[in-house]
Amino acid sequence: MKYVRFRDPAGAVRRGEYENGTVRFANESYALDSDEIDVLPPSDPSKVVCIGRNYADHADEMGSDLPDRPLLFLKPPNAVAGHGDTVTPPAGKDRIDYEAELGVVIGEQCRHVPEADAMDVVEGFTCVNDISNRDDQRQEQNWIRGKAFDGAAPIGPVLATPDELPADAAVRSRVNGERKQDGSREQLIFSIPELIAEITTYLTLEPGDVIATGTPEGVGPLSDGDEVEIEVEGVGTLEHSVRIP
Amino acid sequence: MKYVRFRDPAGAVRRGEYENGTVRFANESYALDSDEIDVLPPSDPSKVVCIGRNYADHADEMGSDLPDRPLLFLKPPNAVAGHGDTVTPPAGKDRIDYEAELGVVIGEQCRHVPEADAMDVVEGFTCVNDISNRDDQRQEQNWIRGKAFDGAAPIGPVLATPDELPADAAVRSRVNGERKQDGSREQLIFSIPELIAEITTYLTLEPGDVIATGTPEGVGPLSDGDEVEIEVEGVGTLEHSVRIP
Repeated sequence: MKYVRFRDPAGAVRRGEYENGTVRFANESYALDSDEIDVLPPSDPSKVVCIGRNYADHADEMGSDLPDRPLLFLKPPNAVAGHGDTVTPPAGKDRIDYEAELGVVIGEQCRHVPEADAMDVVEGFTCVNDISNRDDQRQEQNWIRGKAFDGAAPIGPVLATPDELPADAAVRSRVNGERKQDGSREQLIFSIPELIAEITTYLTLEPGDVIATGTPEGVGPLSDGDEVEIEVEGVGTLEHSVRIP
Repeated sequence: MKYVRFRDPAGAVRRGEYENGTVRFANESYALDSDEIDVLPPSDPSKVVCIGRNYADHADEMGSDLPDRPLLFLKPPNAVAGHGDTVTPPAGKDRIDYEAELGVVIGEQCRHVPEADAMDVVEGFTCVNDISNRDDQRQEQNWIRGKAFDGAAPIGPVLATPDELPADAAVRSRVNGERKQDGSREQLIFSIPELIAEITTYLTLEPGDVIATGTPEGVGPLSDGDEVEIEVEGVGTLEHSVRIP
Protein backbone atom coordinates (compact mmCIF):
# COMPACT_ATOMS: atom_id res chain seq x y z
CA MET A 1 0.00 0.00 0.00
CA LYS A 2 1.00 3.58 -0.63
CA TYR A 3 -0.37 6.65 1.10
CA VAL A 4 -0.18 10.42 0.63
CA ARG A 5 -1.11 12.91 3.34
CA PHE A 6 -2.70 16.07 2.04
CA ARG A 7 -4.95 19.02 2.86
CA ASP A 8 -8.19 18.69 0.93
CA PRO A 9 -10.12 21.57 -0.71
CA ALA A 10 -12.07 22.07 2.55
CA GLY A 11 -8.81 22.41 4.51
CA ALA A 12 -9.02 19.04 6.25
CA VAL A 13 -5.86 16.96 6.63
CA ARG A 14 -6.37 13.50 5.12
CA ARG A 15 -4.30 10.42 4.47
CA GLY A 16 -5.39 8.94 1.18
CA GLU A 17 -4.42 5.81 -0.70
CA TYR A 18 -2.05 6.51 -3.55
CA GLU A 19 -1.79 4.74 -6.87
CA ASN A 20 -0.45 5.84 -10.25
CA GLY A 21 -0.50 9.56 -9.55
CA THR A 22 -3.94 9.57 -7.92
CA VAL A 23 -4.78 10.07 -4.23
CA ARG A 24 -8.11 8.70 -2.97
CA PHE A 25 -9.89 9.42 0.31
CA ALA A 26 -13.49 8.27 0.93
CA ASN A 27 -15.42 9.14 -2.21
CA GLU A 28 -12.96 11.70 -3.53
CA SER A 29 -9.90 11.35 -5.74
CA TYR A 30 -7.31 13.90 -6.76
CA ALA A 31 -4.27 14.02 -8.99
CA LEU A 32 -1.14 14.23 -6.82
CA ASP A 33 0.00 17.39 -8.56
CA SER A 34 -3.41 19.04 -8.89
CA ASP A 35 -3.95 22.54 -7.51
CA GLU A 36 -6.93 21.27 -5.51
CA ILE A 37 -4.87 19.72 -2.74
CA ASP A 38 -1.78 20.63 -0.72
CA VAL A 39 0.50 17.62 -0.47
CA LEU A 40 1.95 17.34 3.04
CA PRO A 41 4.92 15.40 4.39
CA PRO A 42 3.80 11.86 5.29
CA SER A 43 4.00 12.67 9.03
CA ASP A 44 4.74 15.49 11.46
CA PRO A 45 7.96 14.13 12.96
CA SER A 46 9.06 15.30 16.40
CA LYS A 47 12.58 14.78 15.01
CA VAL A 48 14.35 13.48 11.93
CA VAL A 49 17.27 11.27 12.95
CA CYS A 50 19.83 11.35 10.17
CA ILE A 51 22.75 9.05 9.43
CA GLY A 52 26.03 10.35 8.00
CA ARG A 53 28.49 8.34 5.91
CA ASN A 54 26.29 5.27 5.55
CA TYR A 55 27.42 4.53 1.98
CA ALA A 56 31.12 3.78 1.49
CA ASP A 57 31.32 5.55 -1.88
CA HIS A 58 29.85 8.77 -0.43
CA ALA A 59 32.20 8.75 2.59
CA ASP A 60 35.01 8.39 0.05
CA GLU A 61 33.87 11.31 -2.10
CA MET A 62 33.69 13.49 1.06
CA GLY A 63 37.22 12.45 2.08
CA SER A 64 35.83 10.90 5.27
CA ASP A 65 36.68 7.66 7.05
CA LEU A 66 33.97 5.06 7.53
CA PRO A 67 32.42 5.29 10.99
CA ASP A 68 32.69 2.29 13.32
CA ARG A 69 29.15 2.96 14.53
CA PRO A 70 26.38 5.03 12.93
CA LEU A 71 27.16 8.75 12.68
CA LEU A 72 23.95 10.35 14.03
CA PHE A 73 22.65 13.89 13.65
CA LEU A 74 19.26 15.59 14.01
CA LYS A 75 16.94 17.76 11.96
CA PRO A 76 14.22 19.42 14.07
CA PRO A 77 10.61 20.01 12.92
CA ASN A 78 11.44 23.43 11.42
CA ALA A 79 13.58 21.61 8.83
CA VAL A 80 10.68 19.61 7.39
CA ALA A 81 9.39 20.59 3.93
CA GLY A 82 7.13 18.77 1.47
CA HIS A 83 6.57 17.75 -2.12
CA GLY A 84 6.18 20.76 -4.38
CA ASP A 85 7.66 23.21 -1.89
CA THR A 86 10.32 25.78 -2.65
CA VAL A 87 13.20 25.53 -0.17
CA THR A 88 15.16 28.71 0.60
CA PRO A 89 18.45 27.89 2.35
CA PRO A 90 20.31 30.47 4.45
CA ALA A 91 21.59 33.43 2.44
CA GLY A 92 25.15 34.02 1.33
CA LYS A 93 26.38 30.43 1.20
CA ASP A 94 28.59 29.13 -1.62
CA ARG A 95 27.63 25.48 -1.51
CA ILE A 96 24.16 24.06 -0.84
CA ASP A 97 24.04 20.34 -1.73
CA TYR A 98 21.28 17.80 -2.40
CA GLU A 99 21.55 14.35 -0.78
CA ALA A 100 19.02 11.68 -1.84
CA GLU A 101 18.03 9.35 1.00
CA LEU A 102 15.71 6.48 1.84
CA GLY A 103 13.52 7.63 4.75
CA VAL A 104 12.09 5.27 7.38
CA VAL A 105 8.81 6.40 9.00
CA ILE A 106 8.31 5.09 12.54
CA GLY A 107 4.87 3.70 13.39
CA GLU A 108 4.89 3.40 17.16
CA GLN A 109 6.58 4.83 20.24
CA CYS A 110 9.61 2.66 20.97
CA ARG A 111 12.84 2.40 22.93
CA HIS A 112 15.44 -0.38 23.28
CA VAL A 113 14.27 -2.19 20.13
CA PRO A 114 16.34 -5.31 19.33
CA GLU A 115 17.46 -5.65 15.70
CA ALA A 116 15.30 -8.74 15.30
CA ASP A 117 12.15 -6.75 16.16
CA ALA A 118 13.09 -3.50 14.43
CA MET A 119 10.88 -3.88 11.37
CA ASP A 120 7.84 -4.12 13.69
CA VAL A 121 8.17 -0.41 14.54
CA VAL A 122 8.47 0.68 10.89
CA GLU A 123 5.29 2.05 9.34
CA GLY A 124 6.85 2.48 5.94
CA PHE A 125 9.34 4.20 3.66
CA THR A 126 9.55 7.59 2.01
CA CYS A 127 11.97 9.88 0.16
CA VAL A 128 14.16 12.47 1.92
CA ASN A 129 16.48 15.18 0.64
CA ASP A 130 19.12 15.87 3.31
CA ILE A 131 19.89 19.39 2.07
CA SER A 132 23.29 20.49 3.35
CA ASN A 133 24.90 23.90 3.72
CA ARG A 134 28.54 22.89 3.37
CA ASP A 135 29.95 26.35 4.20
CA ASP A 136 28.78 26.03 7.79
CA GLN A 137 28.80 22.24 8.10
CA ARG A 138 32.57 22.19 7.55
CA GLN A 139 33.09 24.67 10.40
CA GLU A 140 30.70 23.31 13.03
CA GLN A 141 31.08 20.72 15.78
CA ASN A 142 27.35 19.95 15.48
CA TRP A 143 25.71 20.37 12.08
CA ILE A 144 23.00 22.90 13.01
CA ARG A 145 23.57 25.80 10.62
CA GLY A 146 24.75 23.16 8.16
CA LYS A 147 21.80 20.78 8.23
CA ALA A 148 19.02 21.92 10.62
CA PHE A 149 17.96 25.13 8.86
CA ASP A 150 14.35 25.75 7.79
CA GLY A 151 13.46 23.50 4.85
CA ALA A 152 16.61 21.34 5.08
CA ALA A 153 14.54 18.13 5.06
CA PRO A 154 12.01 17.80 2.22
CA ILE A 155 10.14 14.53 2.90
CA GLY A 156 7.53 12.58 0.95
CA PRO A 157 5.21 12.58 -0.81
CA VAL A 158 4.52 8.83 -0.60
CA LEU A 159 4.58 6.58 2.45
CA ALA A 160 4.97 3.01 1.13
CA THR A 161 4.43 0.04 3.42
CA PRO A 162 7.51 -2.17 3.92
CA ASP A 163 6.36 -4.83 1.44
CA GLU A 164 6.61 -2.26 -1.38
CA LEU A 165 10.37 -1.72 -1.01
CA PRO A 166 12.67 -4.03 -2.99
CA ALA A 167 15.71 -5.32 -1.06
CA ASP A 168 17.88 -3.57 -3.65
CA ALA A 169 15.68 -0.47 -3.98
CA ALA A 170 17.43 2.28 -5.94
CA VAL A 171 17.98 5.67 -4.24
CA ARG A 172 18.38 8.35 -6.88
CA SER A 173 18.49 12.10 -7.37
CA ARG A 174 17.97 14.22 -10.43
CA VAL A 175 18.50 17.97 -10.80
CA ASN A 176 16.63 19.65 -13.66
CA GLY A 177 16.02 16.17 -15.03
CA GLU A 178 19.69 15.11 -15.02
CA ARG A 179 20.60 11.99 -13.03
CA LYS A 180 23.05 12.81 -10.19
CA GLN A 181 22.92 9.89 -7.73
CA ASP A 182 22.05 6.25 -8.27
CA GLY A 183 22.66 4.08 -5.21
CA SER A 184 20.90 1.12 -3.67
CA ARG A 185 19.53 0.20 -0.26
CA GLU A 186 21.85 -2.83 -0.43
CA GLN A 187 24.85 -0.49 -0.11
CA LEU A 188 23.88 0.75 3.37
CA ILE A 189 26.79 0.16 5.75
CA PHE A 190 24.44 0.00 8.74
CA SER A 191 21.14 -1.70 7.91
CA ILE A 192 17.76 -0.29 8.93
CA PRO A 193 17.39 -2.75 11.86
CA GLU A 194 20.91 -1.90 13.03
CA LEU A 195 20.08 1.82 12.89
CA ILE A 196 16.82 1.43 14.82
CA ALA A 197 18.52 -0.69 17.50
CA GLU A 198 21.38 1.79 17.91
CA ILE A 199 19.19 4.93 17.95
CA THR A 200 16.71 3.47 20.45
CA THR A 201 19.53 2.54 22.82
CA TYR A 202 19.63 6.28 23.51
CA LEU A 203 16.43 7.95 22.26
CA THR A 204 12.73 7.16 22.23
CA LEU A 205 11.33 7.24 18.70
CA GLU A 206 7.78 8.57 18.34
CA PRO A 207 5.12 7.73 15.73
CA GLY A 208 5.88 9.81 12.65
CA ASP A 209 9.57 10.25 13.43
CA VAL A 210 11.74 9.74 10.37
CA ILE A 211 15.17 8.13 10.04
CA ALA A 212 17.12 9.40 7.00
CA THR A 213 19.44 6.52 6.24
CA GLY A 214 22.31 8.30 4.48
CA THR A 215 23.15 9.25 0.92
CA PRO A 216 25.04 7.45 -1.88
CA GLU A 217 27.84 9.05 -3.91
CA GLY A 218 27.17 11.83 -6.37
CA VAL A 219 26.19 14.71 -4.09
CA GLY A 220 26.61 18.13 -5.59
CA PRO A 221 25.62 21.78 -5.51
CA LEU A 222 22.24 23.38 -6.12
CA SER A 223 21.69 26.65 -7.96
CA ASP A 224 18.86 29.14 -7.80
CA GLY A 225 15.75 27.79 -9.47
CA ASP A 226 16.90 24.17 -9.64
CA GLU A 227 14.22 21.47 -9.72
CA VAL A 228 15.20 18.51 -7.54
CA GLU A 229 13.82 14.97 -7.70
CA ILE A 230 14.54 12.33 -5.05
CA GLU A 231 13.42 8.86 -6.11
CA VAL A 232 13.26 5.72 -4.03
CA GLU A 233 12.39 2.68 -6.11
CA GLY A 234 9.14 1.10 -4.94
CA VAL A 235 8.12 4.27 -3.11
CA GLY A 236 7.92 7.25 -5.44
CA THR A 237 9.51 10.56 -6.32
CA LEU A 238 9.79 13.71 -4.20
CA GLU A 239 10.00 16.92 -6.19
CA HIS A 240 10.85 20.38 -4.92
CA SER A 241 12.57 23.51 -6.10
CA VAL A 242 15.19 25.69 -4.45
CA ARG A 243 15.66 29.41 -4.23
CA ILE A 244 19.24 30.35 -3.43
CA PRO A 245 19.22 33.87 -1.96
CA MET B 1 5.31 37.12 37.37
CA LYS B 2 6.16 33.49 37.81
CA TYR B 3 4.25 30.52 36.41
CA VAL B 4 4.27 26.76 36.89
CA ARG B 5 2.64 24.36 34.44
CA PHE B 6 1.12 21.31 36.08
CA ARG B 7 -1.43 18.53 35.77
CA ASP B 8 -4.18 19.08 38.34
CA PRO B 9 -5.90 16.32 40.37
CA ALA B 10 -8.53 15.99 37.58
CA GLY B 11 -5.80 15.43 34.99
CA ALA B 12 -6.14 18.83 33.29
CA VAL B 13 -2.98 20.68 32.25
CA ARG B 14 -2.92 24.15 33.81
CA ARG B 15 -0.55 27.07 33.98
CA GLY B 16 -0.82 28.60 37.43
CA GLU B 17 0.74 31.63 39.04
CA TYR B 18 3.61 30.74 41.32
CA GLU B 19 4.70 32.47 44.51
CA ASN B 20 6.64 31.24 47.55
CA GLY B 21 6.18 27.57 46.88
CA THR B 22 2.47 27.79 46.02
CA VAL B 23 0.85 27.39 42.59
CA ARG B 24 -2.58 29.00 42.05
CA PHE B 25 -5.04 28.43 39.22
CA ALA B 26 -8.60 29.84 39.38
CA ASN B 27 -9.90 29.06 42.88
CA GLU B 28 -7.40 26.33 43.66
CA SER B 29 -3.93 26.45 45.15
CA TYR B 30 -1.36 23.72 45.62
CA ALA B 31 2.06 23.37 47.18
CA LEU B 32 4.66 22.96 44.39
CA ASP B 33 5.91 19.72 45.86
CA SER B 34 2.54 18.30 46.90
CA ASP B 35 1.49 14.86 45.71
CA GLU B 36 -1.78 16.35 44.39
CA ILE B 37 -0.23 17.76 41.21
CA ASP B 38 2.29 16.67 38.60
CA VAL B 39 4.66 19.51 37.86
CA LEU B 40 5.36 19.73 34.11
CA PRO B 41 8.12 21.47 32.15
CA PRO B 42 7.08 25.09 31.48
CA SER B 43 6.41 24.29 27.79
CA ASP B 44 6.44 21.45 25.27
CA PRO B 45 9.36 22.59 23.12
CA SER B 46 9.61 21.39 19.52
CA LYS B 47 13.37 21.65 20.13
CA VAL B 48 15.84 22.80 22.76
CA VAL B 49 18.61 24.81 21.13
CA CYS B 50 21.70 24.54 23.30
CA ILE B 51 24.85 26.63 23.40
CA GLY B 52 28.26 25.10 24.09
CA ARG B 53 31.25 26.91 25.60
CA ASN B 54 29.39 30.13 26.40
CA TYR B 55 31.29 30.77 29.65
CA ALA B 56 35.06 31.26 29.32
CA ASP B 57 35.87 29.47 32.59
CA HIS B 58 33.89 26.37 31.51
CA ALA B 59 35.56 26.24 28.07
CA ASP B 60 38.85 26.40 29.95
CA GLU B 61 37.99 23.54 32.32
CA MET B 62 37.02 21.40 29.28
CA GLY B 63 40.31 22.22 27.53
CA SER B 64 38.38 23.89 24.69
CA ASP B 65 39.04 27.07 22.76
CA LEU B 66 36.47 29.84 22.83
CA PRO B 67 34.20 29.74 19.78
CA ASP B 68 34.18 32.74 17.43
CA ARG B 69 30.43 32.31 17.01
CA PRO B 70 27.92 30.42 19.16
CA LEU B 71 28.48 26.66 19.28
CA LEU B 72 24.96 25.29 18.65
CA PHE B 73 23.54 21.85 19.31
CA LEU B 74 20.05 20.38 19.70
CA LYS B 75 18.07 18.36 22.21
CA PRO B 76 14.85 16.91 20.74
CA PRO B 77 11.54 16.55 22.63
CA ASN B 78 12.44 13.06 23.93
CA ALA B 79 15.19 14.73 26.00
CA VAL B 80 12.81 16.91 28.02
CA ALA B 81 12.22 15.99 31.68
CA GLY B 82 10.67 17.92 34.54
CA HIS B 83 10.94 18.96 38.17
CA GLY B 84 10.84 15.97 40.48
CA ASP B 85 11.59 13.44 37.75
CA THR B 86 14.19 10.70 37.95
CA VAL B 87 16.48 10.77 34.90
CA THR B 88 18.01 7.47 33.77
CA PRO B 89 20.91 8.09 31.35
CA PRO B 90 22.10 5.40 28.91
CA ALA B 91 23.57 2.35 30.64
CA GLY B 92 27.23 1.49 30.97
CA LYS B 93 28.72 5.00 30.80
CA ASP B 94 31.53 6.14 33.08
CA ARG B 95 30.83 9.82 33.14
CA ILE B 96 27.40 11.49 33.22
CA ASP B 97 27.72 15.21 34.10
CA TYR B 98 25.35 17.91 35.33
CA GLU B 99 25.50 21.35 33.65
CA ALA B 100 23.43 24.17 35.21
CA GLU B 101 22.03 26.59 32.63
CA LEU B 102 19.78 29.60 32.29
CA GLY B 103 16.95 28.64 29.92
CA VAL B 104 15.15 31.11 27.64
CA VAL B 105 11.54 30.21 26.77
CA ILE B 106 10.39 31.59 23.39
CA GLY B 107 6.95 33.22 23.28
CA GLU B 108 6.20 33.54 19.58
CA GLN B 109 7.10 32.02 16.23
CA CYS B 110 10.03 33.99 14.86
CA ARG B 111 12.79 34.05 12.25
CA HIS B 112 15.43 36.66 11.36
CA VAL B 113 15.08 38.50 14.68
CA PRO B 114 17.47 41.48 14.99
CA GLU B 115 19.36 41.71 18.29
CA ALA B 116 17.55 44.94 19.12
CA ASP B 117 14.17 43.17 18.98
CA ALA B 118 15.22 39.84 20.48
CA MET B 119 13.75 40.35 23.94
CA ASP B 120 10.31 40.81 22.31
CA VAL B 121 10.21 37.09 21.43
CA VAL B 122 11.19 35.95 24.95
CA GLU B 123 8.34 34.80 27.14
CA GLY B 124 10.56 34.23 30.14
CA PHE B 125 13.34 32.33 31.85
CA THR B 126 13.67 28.93 33.45
CA CYS B 127 16.26 26.45 34.75
CA VAL B 128 17.84 23.74 32.58
CA ASN B 129 20.19 20.88 33.36
CA ASP B 130 22.16 20.03 30.19
CA ILE B 131 22.94 16.46 31.26
CA SER B 132 25.90 15.15 29.29
CA ASN B 133 27.17 11.64 28.61
CA ARG B 134 30.86 12.40 28.17
CA ASP B 135 31.83 8.85 27.09
CA ASP B 136 29.94 9.28 23.83
CA GLN B 137 30.16 13.07 23.49
CA ARG B 138 33.96 12.85 23.23
CA GLN B 139 33.69 10.37 20.34
CA GLU B 140 30.87 11.91 18.28
CA GLN B 141 30.83 14.48 15.49
CA ASN B 142 27.31 15.49 16.55
CA TRP B 143 26.41 15.16 20.25
CA ILE B 144 23.41 12.84 19.94
CA ARG B 145 24.28 9.87 22.17
CA GLY B 146 26.13 12.42 24.31
CA LYS B 147 23.40 14.99 24.84
CA ALA B 148 20.10 14.06 23.11
CA PHE B 149 19.22 10.90 25.07
CA ASP B 150 15.90 10.54 26.89
CA GLY B 151 15.80 12.82 29.93
CA ALA B 152 18.97 14.76 29.02
CA ALA B 153 17.16 18.10 29.46
CA PRO B 154 15.34 18.57 32.77
CA ILE B 155 13.58 21.97 32.49
CA GLY B 156 11.56 24.06 34.92
CA PRO B 157 9.70 24.22 37.14
CA VAL B 158 9.23 28.01 37.07
CA LEU B 159 8.80 30.27 34.05
CA ALA B 160 9.70 33.79 35.23
CA THR B 161 8.89 36.81 33.10
CA PRO B 162 11.94 38.81 31.94
CA ASP B 163 11.52 41.53 34.59
CA GLU B 164 12.19 38.92 37.32
CA LEU B 165 15.74 38.12 36.15
CA PRO B 166 18.56 40.27 37.58
CA ALA B 167 21.20 41.38 35.06
CA ASP B 168 23.75 39.46 37.13
CA ALA B 169 21.45 36.49 37.93
CA ALA B 170 23.40 33.63 39.51
CA VAL B 171 23.34 30.23 37.74
CA ARG B 172 24.12 27.50 40.27
CA SER B 173 24.05 23.76 40.73
CA ARG B 174 24.06 21.63 43.85
CA VAL B 175 24.40 17.87 44.11
CA ASN B 176 23.07 16.30 47.33
CA GLY B 177 23.01 19.81 48.76
CA GLU B 178 26.64 20.62 47.98
CA ARG B 179 27.34 23.68 45.82
CA LYS B 180 29.04 22.72 42.54
CA GLN B 181 28.61 25.66 40.12
CA ASP B 182 28.12 29.35 40.81
CA GLY B 183 28.21 31.48 37.69
CA SER B 184 26.36 34.58 36.53
CA ARG B 185 24.38 35.62 33.49
CA GLU B 186 26.89 38.46 33.14
CA GLN B 187 29.59 35.94 32.21
CA LEU B 188 27.81 34.79 29.01
CA ILE B 189 30.18 35.20 26.07
CA PHE B 190 27.26 35.55 23.64
CA SER B 191 24.33 37.46 25.16
CA ILE B 192 20.73 36.30 24.89
CA PRO B 193 19.91 38.80 22.08
CA GLU B 194 23.04 37.71 20.19
CA LEU B 195 22.01 34.05 20.52
CA ILE B 196 18.45 34.67 19.33
CA ALA B 197 19.67 36.71 16.34
CA GLU B 198 22.20 34.03 15.35
CA ILE B 199 19.85 31.05 15.79
CA THR B 200 17.00 32.70 13.87
CA THR B 201 19.31 33.46 10.95
CA TYR B 202 19.00 29.71 10.27
CA LEU B 203 16.03 28.26 12.19
CA THR B 204 12.48 29.30 12.99
CA LEU B 205 11.88 29.29 16.74
CA GLU B 206 8.41 28.19 17.86
CA PRO B 207 6.41 29.19 20.96
CA GLY B 208 7.68 27.03 23.83
CA ASP B 209 11.08 26.36 22.29
CA VAL B 210 13.88 26.69 24.82
CA ILE B 211 17.39 28.06 24.41
CA ALA B 212 19.84 26.65 26.96
CA THR B 213 22.47 29.37 27.20
CA GLY B 214 25.52 27.37 28.32
CA THR B 215 27.04 26.35 31.63
CA PRO B 216 29.60 27.99 33.94
CA GLU B 217 32.64 26.19 35.35
CA GLY B 218 32.34 23.45 37.92
CA VAL B 219 30.68 20.66 35.91
CA GLY B 220 31.19 17.20 37.30
CA PRO B 221 29.96 13.62 37.47
CA LEU B 222 26.70 12.26 38.80
CA SER B 223 26.33 9.02 40.75
CA ASP B 224 23.36 6.72 41.18
CA GLY B 225 20.79 8.28 43.48
CA ASP B 226 22.18 11.80 43.36
CA GLU B 227 19.76 14.66 44.01
CA VAL B 228 20.46 17.58 41.65
CA GLU B 229 19.38 21.20 42.07
CA ILE B 230 19.70 23.80 39.30
CA GLU B 231 19.07 27.33 40.57
CA VAL B 232 18.69 30.50 38.54
CA GLU B 233 18.49 33.56 40.74
CA GLY B 234 15.18 35.39 40.28
CA VAL B 235 13.59 32.30 38.73
CA GLY B 236 13.69 29.32 41.08
CA THR B 237 15.19 25.90 41.60
CA LEU B 238 14.79 22.76 39.48
CA GLU B 239 15.20 19.53 41.44
CA HIS B 240 15.53 16.03 40.02
CA SER B 241 17.25 12.78 40.83
CA VAL B 242 19.31 10.44 38.67
CA ARG B 243 19.48 6.70 38.38
CA ILE B 244 22.75 5.53 36.84
CA PRO B 245 22.17 2.02 35.45
